[in-house]
Parts: sequence; structure tokens; C-alpha cells
Amino acid sequence: MKKWLKSLKTKTPQEGYELAITLSQKGVEYTQPSEAIRKKLRPKYAKDPDSLTAASQVIAINFQTVAAANNYWKDHVKFQ
Amino acid sequence: MKKWLKSLKTKTPQEGYELAITLSQKGVEYTQPSEAIRKKLRPKYAKDPDSLTAASQVIAINFQTVAAANNYWKDHVKFQ
Amino acid sequence: MKKWLKSLKTKTPQEGYELAITLSQKGVEYTQPSEAIRKKLRPKYAKDPDSLTAASQVIAINFQTVAAANNYWKDHVKFQ
Amino acid sequence: MKKWLKSLKTKTPQEGYELAITLSQKGVEYTQPSEAIRKKLRPKYAKDPDSLTAASQVIAINFQTVAAANNYWKDHVKFQ
Amino acid sequence: MKKWLKSLKTKTPQEGYELAITLSQKGVEYTQPSEAIRKKLRPKYAKDPDSLTAASQVIAINFQTVAAANNYWKDHVKFQ
Amino acid sequence: MKKWLKSLKTKTPQEGYELAITLSQKGVEYTQPSEAIRKKLRPKYAKDPDSLTAASQVIAINFQTVAAANNYWKDHVKFQ
Repeated sequence: MKKWLKSLKTKTPQEGYELAITLSQKGVEYTQPSEAIRKKLRPKYAKDPDSLTAASQVIAINFQTVAAANNYWKDHVKFQ
Repeated sequence: MKKWLKSLKTKTPQEGYELAITLSQKGVEYTQPSEAIRKKLRPKYAKDPDSLTAASQVIAINFQTVAAANNYWKDHVKFQ
Repeated sequence: MKKWLKSLKTKTPQEGYELAITLSQKGVEYTQPSEAIRKKLRPKYAKDPDSLTAASQVIAINFQTVAAANNYWKDHVKFQ
Repeated sequence: MKKWLKSLKTKTPQEGYELAITLSQKGVEYTQPSEAIRKKLRPKYAKDPDSLTAASQVIAINFQTVAAANNYWKDHVKFQ
Repeated sequence: MKKWLKSLKTKTPQEGYELAITLSQKGVEYTQPSEAIRKKLRPKYAKDPDSLTAASQVIAINFQTVAAANNYWKDHVKFQ
Repeated sequence: MKKWLKSLKTKTPQEGYELAITLSQKGVEYTQPSEAIRKKLRPKYAKDPDSLTAASQVIAINFQTVAAANNYWKDHVKFQ
């Protein structure tokens, strides 16, 4: 597979979250490399609430990794 | 997507928990961007106990991240 | 939602475990705020062994957070 | 509930694993306090391979906590 | 149960992975102690791809514990 | 099983992600050693979106381990 992951560092927490989404999608892509098949699966998938929760869970796990890699962006101390 | 996550820091543990809920919902929103579809899914979802447990699990995973980012709010040492 | 989480610190590991249970329940409550609906779901839920295991898993994840926040109660060095 | 968890410290890794099992069972007990109901659920549960894997997963998560609390029993450096 | 876990330390990452498998199997054994029943469940189980993924997930969780206990075998710095 | 895991260290994050995939597959292989059976299971598996999400989740868990073992490749500080 061509280069898609250069670093776990991101400038902001939100970019880190979006990187976690990419990591989650890549896990699917490596397992099912056919884009045609993945696209066909999408409609069913994206309308099943349990599938959506499961997707969010994988993102959450990857976000743990990205957040740790960025030391939780502790320089960005603006409170929510 | 517009800016929604400025920092993982929160003032209190409860705000941290609520940020974990936001993170969990965002994982669903990125996967299913249509608000109309998400709203249609909600009634079924929110009455299925296993779906609710799964939702709580994603929140728990995100709360681990938020809690670590805040060093577990160790300055807030009031006991439960 | 009114204040329900003041701190992740607890005096003993068992209180920490019980806080993990509260955290797990709150994840459900935020997702399904109606107490009436939650009560109706309970009978089915509490008799399904897989649902019970799933509940225990969410507690386990939250207990990781609480235990870390308390530095694993390392002052309570009484062996089991 | 009466006192059942005094400490996360154990003398050996195996006792730590067994404590992780106790923690996993307690998550079920708090959710379904009736021992009669839990016993009735057991036969079905213990013959379903996916239920057994799920049980092992909860134990694995709790074992992470117990192992960290014991600093991975690093004084017990006998190799496997 | 007789002694089966002396230490989390292993000489190599691969032995660590294999210890993670043992830990995962033990979670099943403690829950269903009858070897006869476990053997009967195996054929169905080992041909269900989702069951296999679930098994791999439990191993992954236990491998996190074993890897941390071994400080990720950082003396074994040969690259993959 | 012959030697397949020499180290958790990789040169880049992407190689680390690919090692996480290998670790995830090995969990399946140890549980179902027959390559013939695994190949037969694959078509169904790779077209079920929930199975793909589950696979991505196992990869995410293993990637946490690999990333920690590499100190999150903090020398590779190029931003995404």
C-alpha cells in the first residue's frame, strides 16, 4: 500500500480525531481492499445505529493512541 | 467539518465526561453525516438496552482519553 | 444535567469500583434520559447473560480510569 | 454491598488473574443482584462459545488494571 | 486451579504473544471448566469468522498487558 | 509455530500499523490453524461491514501496543 501515514503528530486535537478516523478506515481498507465492495456495503452500514456505534468505538480506540502520541495536546490548554 | 474540538482540557471531571459524550457522538456524525438519517435511527436505538450499553462503552473509552489528558483532575481531590 | 461527578478519587478500591458502575450507568442515562423507558428495558436486559457481560465490560473500562486516577490505591497495600 | 475488594495488590500474577475474574463477576452481580436468576442463566451462557470469549475479554480488561496496580509483578522475574 | 502463571515476563515478543493466547484461553477455562464441553464447542467456533475476530481481540488486549510488563522488549531492537 | 515476531519496533508509523495488522491476523491463525478453512471463511467475512469494523477494532488495539513500543515514533515529527 502506498504511503498514507507519515506521523501520529497533529497540530490540534480535532485533527488528531480526524486522523483517528483515517486509522479506523484504513483497518477496513486493508481487510477489504476493493473500493467497489466497500462502497456497496456503505448504505446498509451507515443506517444501522449499532454499526455506527461500533464505528465510533474504533475511532475512540485509535484516538487514544493519537492523543497519547501528542501528549494530549497539553500546550493547547484552552478550556472547552 | 467546522471546528468542534479545541482542547481535551476541562474544568471538572463531569465536564470531561460530557466531552467524552461529544467525542462519541462525533464518531457517529463523521460516519453518517446526515442529521435526518441519524434522527430517524434514534427511536429504535434508544430503546434497545444493548445499544445503550454499547453507547456507554464508547463514552467510557473516550473518557479514558479525556481523563488522562486532564491528569485525572488530581487537583480536584474532593472525595466522592 | 445536575452535578453528579465531583471527583474520580475514592477512599477505597471498592468505592472506586462502585464509582465505575455509576459512570457506566450515566453513559446510558445521557443517551436515554427517560427514566420510565430505562425501567421498562431493565427486566429483559437483566436476564440476558450477554447483556450482563457487556455491562460488566463497560464497568471494567471505567474502573481502569478510576483506578488510574487513584494511583491504584497503592497506599492500601493489604493483600487480597 | 458488603466489603469484597480490599486491595488490588496480589502476591502473584495468577492471584491477580483470579482477582480479575472476581472483578468481572462483580460487574454482573451488581447489575443482576439475584443469585437465583444468575444461576438460571449460567447453563446457556457457559455453552455458548461467543459468550465465553466475551467473558474472557472482560477478564482481560480487568487484568490490565490489576497488573498495572501490581507494577506487573516485576519482582517475580522468573521467565515463563 | 493449579499453578499456570508464574510471571508475565517472556524472553521474546513472540513468546509474549503466545502467553497472551494462554491468558485468553484461561479466561474461557475458568468460566467453563469442563474440557469436554469446551471441546464440543470448538468446531462451530473455529469456523465462524466473527468468533475468530473476537478471539483475536481478547488476545490483543492480553498482549497489551504482557507487552507493557516486558517494557515492550525494548532490548530486542531488531527492526521488523 | 515458527518465528514470525522478532520485535515490536518499526521504522515508521505506517510499518507499525501494518505490524498491528499482522498481530491481528496471527490471533486468528493461532485459533484456526487451517489455512484452507480460513480461506473459505474469507468471502463472507470481507463483505460484512460489521465484520470489517470488528477487524479494524482488533487492529486498533494492537496498534496501541505497537505505537507505545515505538514511543509513538516521536522522532518522526512531521505533521500530518
